[in-house]
Amino acid sequence: MLIVQKYGGTSVGDLERIQNVANRVAKTVKEGNDVVVVVSAMSGETNKLVSYAEHYSDNPQREEVDMLLSSGERVTAALLSIALNEMGLPAESMSGRRAGIVTDTVHTKARIEHIDPTPMRRAIGEGKVVVVAGFQGVNEQGRVTTLGRGGSDLSAVAIAGALEADLCEIYTDVDGIYTTDPRIEPKAKKLEKISYDEMLELASLGAKVLQNRSVELAKKLNVNLVTRSSFSDAEGTLITKEENIMEKPLVSGVALDRNQARISLGGVVDRPGIASDIFGKLASNNVNIDMIIQTLGHDDSTNLDFTVPMNELGDAKKVVETFIEEGEIKEASYDEKICKVSIVGVGMKSHTGVAAKAFKSMAQENINIMMISTSEIKVSMVIDEKYAELAVRALHSVYELEK
Amino acid sequence: MLIVQKYGGTSVGDLERIQNVANRVAKTVKEGNDVVVVVSAMSGETNKLVSYAEHYSDNPQREEVDMLLSSGERVTAALLSIALNEMGLPAESMSGRRAGIVTDTVHTKARIEHIDPTPMRRAIGEGKVVVVAGFQGVNEQGRVTTLGRGGSDLSAVAIAGALEADLCEIYTDVDGIYTTDPRIEPKAKKLEKISYDEMLELASLGAKVLQNRSVELAKKLNVNLVTRSSFSDAEGTLITKEENIMEKPLVSGVALDRNQARISLGGVVDRPGIASDIFGKLASNNVNIDMIIQTLGHDDSTNLDFTVPMNELGDAKKVVETFIEEGEIKEASYDEKICKVSIVGVGMKSHTGVAAKAFKSMAQENINIMMISTSEIKVSMVIDEKYAELAVRALHSVYELEK
Repeated sequence: MLIVQKYGGTSVGDLERIQNVANRVAKTVKEGNDVVVVVSAMSGETNKLVSYAEHYSDNPQREEVDMLLSSGERVTAALLSIALNEMGLPAESMSGRRAGIVTDTVHTKARIEHIDPTPMRRAIGEGKVVVVAGFQGVNEQGRVTTLGRGGSDLSAVAIAGALEADLCEIYTDVDGIYTTDPRIEPKAKKLEKISYDEMLELASLGAKVLQNRSVELAKKLNVNLVTRSSFSDAEGTLITKEENIMEKPLVSGVALDRNQARISLGGVVDRPGIASDIFGKLASNNVNIDMIIQTLGHDDSTNLDFTVPMNELGDAKKVVETFIEEGEIKEASYDEKICKVSIVGVGMKSHTGVAAKAFKSMAQENINIMMISTSEIKVSMVIDEKYAELAVRALHSVYELEK
Repeated sequence: MLIVQKYGGTSVGDLERIQNVANRVAKTVKEGNDVVVVVSAMSGETNKLVSYAEHYSDNPQREEVDMLLSSGERVTAALLSIALNEMGLPAESMSGRRAGIVTDTVHTKARIEHIDPTPMRRAIGEGKVVVVAGFQGVNEQGRVTTLGRGGSDLSAVAIAGALEADLCEIYTDVDGIYTTDPRIEPKAKKLEKISYDEMLELASLGAKVLQNRSVELAKKLNVNLVTRSSFSDAEGTLITKEENIMEKPLVSGVALDRNQARISLGGVVDRPGIASDIFGKLASNNVNIDMIIQTLGHDDSTNLDFTVPMNELGDAKKVVETFIEEGEIKEASYDEKICKVSIVGVGMKSHTGVAAKAFKSMAQENINIMMISTSEIKVSMVIDEKYAELAVRALHSVYELEK
């Protein structure tokens, strides 16, 4: 098999850990695989370099920030390659440029446009382990770019796609994706497999492990993604296309999002286009709306309830106030003490009654559901924050996820 | 004017010093010059990276060492560029590759083969200060190379040559080249100008400031080289071609080399080719011979006296022992307590009696001259080490260098 392995900052946090990574790579090679390794900067290095830049400027030029930050991954790549060669495994380090990673010109947040896999294929053909500096590429002008948060994961997924690798393993300090947060429900179980779409819907479960950008890219390029721990030999979780998952569970996991606030608008004038005006203005102020419920009021007005991310509540309030001043909204209330619990599962597509079971479970626990939204593979409910853990455990149990 | 400025590790040793360099560059730009800056890694960085590599291997692959070490200069280049931009001076950092520096494939000790100045010219044309990461280039295979000791100086000189710059300023913590070591002769004076050839002969005076490789390259490319201090505004020393020096002093400087040992061979069999055998074998054992004196012995044998660098004496002894075992040499003695004093000056070419004056001066001080060698612009004498300072001061005085 051809396997792409990506090791994050914690996994290459010091010289001993880089040796540990070398041992793991060697093991994978000895099992008969070709291996391409993608590495991050040693943990702390990137922050150190950022603080250097901030010594001179609050707003350093992005081109120069990229030149600066891209050095961290180069160092790790060279060191890992030296460690591998010393163990008798021929290895060759490559910068993003040398690995053929071409991006757009949006410095510090570049997108990979294409990868020329020729140099990597040449090195693999020579029996070498290829060690690529993650997080970076080069744009058409020949300048180094970096890919933003989670950038090394993106490098790994894109490389796996370009090389048509059998597997792309993302190593972190977490050993996979769980049915729910084990700190809330100790009975939570690690998932063996999960589909791309489920993973995207379960973002709050996987956010510490995988960013949505990486999962979306894996889905687009049809890359089999595995998240596993570099500190244990436990099997991780395979994120793959739905067709590869034989037994489709009704529900794969329960996600909790505490980072939500609810805005309730009362007495909204009932004229055509008013909802469009309000949400349009919120959007242009960079407020992201999640759920929306519209209900009829007593007189000719309507009520609008919607949720926004907690840290955008302030901006949302300002927008709402302007409509109140103009007399188009009578009153507004804001509730930060809410949360959103979601159940996710591809099995929902083909089975009915999955959502009803969730609502019944909430009723049995006397939890009031304030808002509901559904997609093909997800049911989300907004509830009082104080019931968050109770709701997660009830849902985890009712769908028998502990089994 | 187009000026190339090179700042070494001490000059960019911390964030404050990099700011200091930015101020100096800004001053040069405001005086109406175009500036290309070549920077080293912050002092200590390269050693740190080398120690990282040595954690894994006593003999790390040179390709990977280059990948590793080249990151240090990139960091400095990006930081200086950020500092310059913040001061309102448009600047652009460039790696060795981006600056068009193509080398051979001898990793860790590469030689610059050619420079494509197009990207630098483009940036200068846009009114930018170009900040180049020194010490590095790229080979034909597209891999990063480094240039070995003094590599950033070589980068600067080669860039100055490729851009046909008016001046190449090498900034260190020393403010120029002196007529002799001021720690020995406090009356030593800083030279305003000196020719390439004199500088090469005075290597021991300039070694801390400039390596011979850089001076040789400057001579070859006809680059006007200035060494000066980044910690003061004092004018430095211009190293240029002889034609640019109007008043040619008889003697420009007095150099002292304590790093010499003398080997005296007695009773060397007098057969054709014996000298060739001995010196050939020394050469093939990487022993560098400096001066040689051959004298006739009492019988049919000859005596051979020569000097070698102190740290090659051990190897030289081994070679000599083999000839003694074979009976071709009767006896050998070794003297580490010697030194070499030299006077250097282009004026010697056209004036007679310069050497005689030196010998007379030694005689007046009762210093015995063991060996003498001369070139067109240099007279060197081997003397007892205990007279080193006395000889330097005497020579400095007799040629009136304090004036």
